[in-house]
Amino acid sequence: MDSVSIYAIAVGAVALIVAAILYFKVQAAPEGNEAMQRIARYIREGAMAFLAREYKVLAIYALFVFVAIVGLIGFVGHGGELERGVEAGVAFLAGAFLSLLAGFFGMKAATYANVRTSEAARAHGMPTALVLALDGGAVMGLCVAGLGLVGLGALYYLFQNADAHNLSNVLHAFAVGASSIALFARIGGGIYTKAADVGADIVGKVEANIPEDDPRNPGVIADNVGDNVGDIAGMGADIYESYIAAMVATMALGLTMPVEVLQILAPEVTDESALRLLAVGLPIFLATVGLGVSIAGIFVTRALKNMAPATVLRAALIVPPFLVTAGAAAVFPSLGVSMNAVLTLGAGALGGAIVGLITDYYTSMKPIRDVAQASITGPGTNVISGLAVGFQSVAIPLLVLCIVGWFSATAMGLELYGIALAAVGMLSGTAIVMTVDAYGPIADNAGGISEMSGLGPEVRTITDELDSVGNTTAAVGKGFAIGSAVLTVVALFAAFNMEVNANRARSGLEALDLSLVSAPVLLGILFGAILPCIVAASTMTAVGRAAGAIVEEIRRQFREIPGLLEGKPGVDPDSARIVDLATGAAIKEMILPGVIAVVAPVVIGFGLGAEVLAGALAGATAVGAVIALFMANAGGAWDNAKKHIEKGGLEGHKKGSDAHKAAVVGDTVGDPFKDTSGPGVSILIKVMGVVSLLIAPLLH
Amino acid sequence: MDSVSIYAIAVGAVALIVAAILYFKVQAAPEGNEAMQRIARYIREGAMAFLAREYKVLAIYALFVFVAIVGLIGFVGHGGELERGVEAGVAFLAGAFLSLLAGFFGMKAATYANVRTSEAARAHGMPTALVLALDGGAVMGLCVAGLGLVGLGALYYLFQNADAHNLSNVLHAFAVGASSIALFARIGGGIYTKAADVGADIVGKVEANIPEDDPRNPGVIADNVGDNVGDIAGMGADIYESYIAAMVATMALGLTMPVEVLQILAPEVTDESALRLLAVGLPIFLATVGLGVSIAGIFVTRALKNMAPATVLRAALIVPPFLVTAGAAAVFPSLGVSMNAVLTLGAGALGGAIVGLITDYYTSMKPIRDVAQASITGPGTNVISGLAVGFQSVAIPLLVLCIVGWFSATAMGLELYGIALAAVGMLSGTAIVMTVDAYGPIADNAGGISEMSGLGPEVRTITDELDSVGNTTAAVGKGFAIGSAVLTVVALFAAFNMEVNANRARSGLEALDLSLVSAPVLLGILFGAILPCIVAASTMTAVGRAAGAIVEEIRRQFREIPGLLEGKPGVDPDSARIVDLATGAAIKEMILPGVIAVVAPVVIGFGLGAEVLAGALAGATAVGAVIALFMANAGGAWDNAKKHIEKGGLEGHKKGSDAHKAAVVGDTVGDPFKDTSGPGVSILIKVMGVVSLLIAPLLH
Repeated sequence: MDSVSIYAIAVGAVALIVAAILYFKVQAAPEGNEAMQRIARYIREGAMAFLAREYKVLAIYALFVFVAIVGLIGFVGHGGELERGVEAGVAFLAGAFLSLLAGFFGMKAATYANVRTSEAARAHGMPTALVLALDGGAVMGLCVAGLGLVGLGALYYLFQNADAHNLSNVLHAFAVGASSIALFARIGGGIYTKAADVGADIVGKVEANIPEDDPRNPGVIADNVGDNVGDIAGMGADIYESYIAAMVATMALGLTMPVEVLQILAPEVTDESALRLLAVGLPIFLATVGLGVSIAGIFVTRALKNMAPATVLRAALIVPPFLVTAGAAAVFPSLGVSMNAVLTLGAGALGGAIVGLITDYYTSMKPIRDVAQASITGPGTNVISGLAVGFQSVAIPLLVLCIVGWFSATAMGLELYGIALAAVGMLSGTAIVMTVDAYGPIADNAGGISEMSGLGPEVRTITDELDSVGNTTAAVGKGFAIGSAVLTVVALFAAFNMEVNANRARSGLEALDLSLVSAPVLLGILFGAILPCIVAASTMTAVGRAAGAIVEEIRRQFREIPGLLEGKPGVDPDSARIVDLATGAAIKEMILPGVIAVVAPVVIGFGLGAEVLAGALAGATAVGAVIALFMANAGGAWDNAKKHIEKGGLEGHKKGSDAHKAAVVGDTVGDPFKDTSGPGVSILIKVMGVVSLLIAPLLH
Repeated sequence: MDSVSIYAIAVGAVALIVAAILYFKVQAAPEGNEAMQRIARYIREGAMAFLAREYKVLAIYALFVFVAIVGLIGFVGHGGELERGVEAGVAFLAGAFLSLLAGFFGMKAATYANVRTSEAARAHGMPTALVLALDGGAVMGLCVAGLGLVGLGALYYLFQNADAHNLSNVLHAFAVGASSIALFARIGGGIYTKAADVGADIVGKVEANIPEDDPRNPGVIADNVGDNVGDIAGMGADIYESYIAAMVATMALGLTMPVEVLQILAPEVTDESALRLLAVGLPIFLATVGLGVSIAGIFVTRALKNMAPATVLRAALIVPPFLVTAGAAAVFPSLGVSMNAVLTLGAGALGGAIVGLITDYYTSMKPIRDVAQASITGPGTNVISGLAVGFQSVAIPLLVLCIVGWFSATAMGLELYGIALAAVGMLSGTAIVMTVDAYGPIADNAGGISEMSGLGPEVRTITDELDSVGNTTAAVGKGFAIGSAVLTVVALFAAFNMEVNANRARSGLEALDLSLVSAPVLLGILFGAILPCIVAASTMTAVGRAAGAIVEEIRRQFREIPGLLEGKPGVDPDSARIVDLATGAAIKEMILPGVIAVVAPVVIGFGLGAEVLAGALAGATAVGAVIALFMANAGGAWDNAKKHIEKGGLEGHKKGSDAHKAAVVGDTVGDPFKDTSGPGVSILIKVMGVVSLLIAPLLH
């Protein structure tokens, strides 16, 4: 384990080199005719303009947090030395900066890949288009995992010989950096994408009665920009942070778990410091193996381009963690790591697969047919039925996570370290999961560009097929993301408790009473339950407000630009203005929920004490997991129920029928559910966990 | 405190005598013309038929549980003696039977009062009609509180000298009896009322385009029956169980809390057994005072019949707990009870008032205007906006409950006993709260009867006004109910933990590790989070299925009964068949969620252990509180947003406009939210708490 950081940096660097090669390969592909190039340029410029404005806000935020971290750790913290504070502050900035970097390159690649995918579909057909879209996604996937691993590896390399307290400070600060960016990128991107989508649809499809992605609609470019800023940059930052947080939580537990528990991990290692080194290095080691497997997996997936893409991509999401487990089974004996750890990884892999497939079930099989059926009696019953599917869909994933947790912690005897390890195992395929996730919006954009630039129906058929595959894999990927997030939060939570108690022990205080019989803990649980609700409500109303502003502007353009609605040649909508409006609204609206998430644990921890904060984390996690799963799956079910009707799945009720209109209502409700509020809540609980972990050594 | 049980029985008996007098008074009032009498008879017969069938199912259920309790406590339990088991079993039956009795008389009175209220409105105008509706509700209110207090008082009288273990067994079993009936009555009634409402509306208002409550619609009688079985019998059982559960939890804590904490309650009482006697008797004492205050309150409310009824009824809900607090402040010094207990009661009263008024705000003021506004852009935005209001509305009530809990437990030093006491304080006005709650559906029914029997518009104006007052007070009452339920559950939960540890101490085991750092507790929290979701999902789909069956049958009648839709004189719909259908469906559908709620804690406790069960209770409570508040308030907001539009509150969009149609969609979604699933979830957590408390002495 001594040189695990070197391996991590090396494999991370390989991933980044592969990403660079794919980036240039995508960029070099032909980008089609002049109309396609123009549209793609609008989308790219819009997406980059959003990033630029978002980054400005984040820079101010980062400056504040940097000062706060330096101040708290450098002056207030245990043995406060300014140098320690600065180290943690810089680690925070590094964590944040690497996330931004991954988002920047990933989105650039995606906005190159979309139009080239259209062109490839036009010139060469399905397999070539599929590979181009995958390559675009792989840049994001490899950047996320590569930069994450290089960053964490370098940090560990620099601080592995520092004292445990110093090491944990920089690790936690790095994770807070990652989380903060994830939070704002996900919420801001989520608001942008859904405000643009809903706004464009309300005026275009409903009022003006023109098709989706019609070039006359001033909101269409913004809608396509939204796919990039929400589903690529936002999703990337989200997964990057899960990846980092799972590793950091495991490392923190490796530093603080009782030595008897770690002994189960490696029964033959008798020296405590060697044992801790092993426990701390293990997650980095597994992520390194996982990244290697994922790079290989990306190439295998590309090579299978002629097979049924839905099956191949689904396998690409599910198989890597099992390969990592198999690799661990082969290598662990030589490291002195017990089979219990292997079985824990296996449980994580299996749990992730089941959660992913269950999500797939609820958002594409019988439940969506039930929702479609309920649309026949109107939008009311459609909505009720989708909400019921959402609530139902919470049960099995949470149950599976409980079983995985029980198996790792209790059956394998690894306690909470085991739960953290299972989360790391589940996330070991991050590079390829992100690749497949980013593939979806690229294919979606390719479809939009084909439509707007008037490519023929045969091209549209190919891009539609690619898009529909993307919807399926998105469901599996989303299940994976939420599942690993919940386990990660449990691990973070455990690490937080350990840290607080370690600090209390240093100050000669006895361990905190975190018993459920204590009133502060119980009331903390109720208090924590409030936070996900606030974030859910505020993001939903934010989408509503932003969409309303976009609706007004689109209506104004149709009214005031002569010839626009009639489609007079040479008359173009002022798309840039909508892009600008959506950008401004999303960035303004992301601030409140974002700040609540970051500030809440600090205020609770310092104001009400560590017991209340511990309770609040538990309450927020339980409620947040429920809301995140409920919203993601209800949203997916409504979306696909609508598509099911459009594909003629409901006999006697085709596109345009009353049943279809009812299904569109559900889809509208589902949009902010699945792409804004649900992901926002799922990040909220991770951010709360990470921030709590950072301030844990300052709490008594 | 020695004779507290005598006082309780005496005041309870007075309440029952008053109830009997009001019952006969209502029955003796004139019941209008032949058409009104016929309709009222249909409703009464339908309601009674539902109760009869429900009671049959409950009898079988009760038999099973009786045998299980006798078996578990009589043979398995600590020092198991058959006699003890039989005592507990009989207490269970008594708790259940008294609930049924209250439901029976209350509903009978309500179904007499509805038509007589119409007739009073016709013959004498508003004030007389108001008093009649209130008297009908008061029978339910006084039966609920009177029977509850007589039952619990008698139980305490019989067992106060038994050993603590025996006493707690019978108390817990009594509460399980109350809870079980509440669970089934609330879920069954909720499914009935919403299936009939939605079914009648879909065919009547939407398809056949005939007004609400039109006598041609075969579903209208069932809809009116539903108001009785859901909002009177169901609500009554629900409040009865909160009332019992809050007292029992406080008594249980009085038996098991460390003596140092109880010392704060009465610093001058030095003898431990006297101290415990005081702590155990206090809740009964307070409920007795509260019932006295409520009886007086009912008469004061009647006397104010000429004032603005919305204000008077709102005050009737909020003022009694403050009067009880004032009474306590006067009496407590002579009992040696400290001012801390008075302040705790005051905090409970204030908290209840704030939660009630906040609920009122979210379901009748600015938020509903926002929802109405969002209806202009269609049903999608209406639904999103209502869901956002629902999530928002969770925050302040839960925060207030946290503050009340913190104040009672920490500031006043009464620990979890203080939280339980605050809940008792909040519920001390139960008789009058239930009176006002039951008033609402009576007024609603009176409106329906006026419409169906063709009374003039001036009568309809009066009954509409009465109905609209009922809607406002229903919101306040609902807030109160959920608020007190959450505090009660926290108290139950605390009592459960104390019981388990008391049992472990008896067996020489050390106290349970209920720390949040323990994996079983943490995973239990996640596991518990599943249960409210299952109940929410299954009750929502149950309403959908039952409504679907009703829709089919109404359509068939319109198709096959010649002259029905045309309104040919002498052609009547076959309402009885719909009533029968709804009854059968509701009773069938209530079984699964009901059994889950009762069985889950038993399976978790015995199968996975007390730590997991403790975690599961905490998780279910946090998630359940959120879902219950979310659903109740979103439902209320949609309902009133629709009414706001109907009253012309949205300029340019009147009844029948697209905005109104969009608002109707939200209302349809809100129906099962607020009247089936939300209340079902709120009962679920109470039932889980009570059942856990009963089995606590059997767990290690």
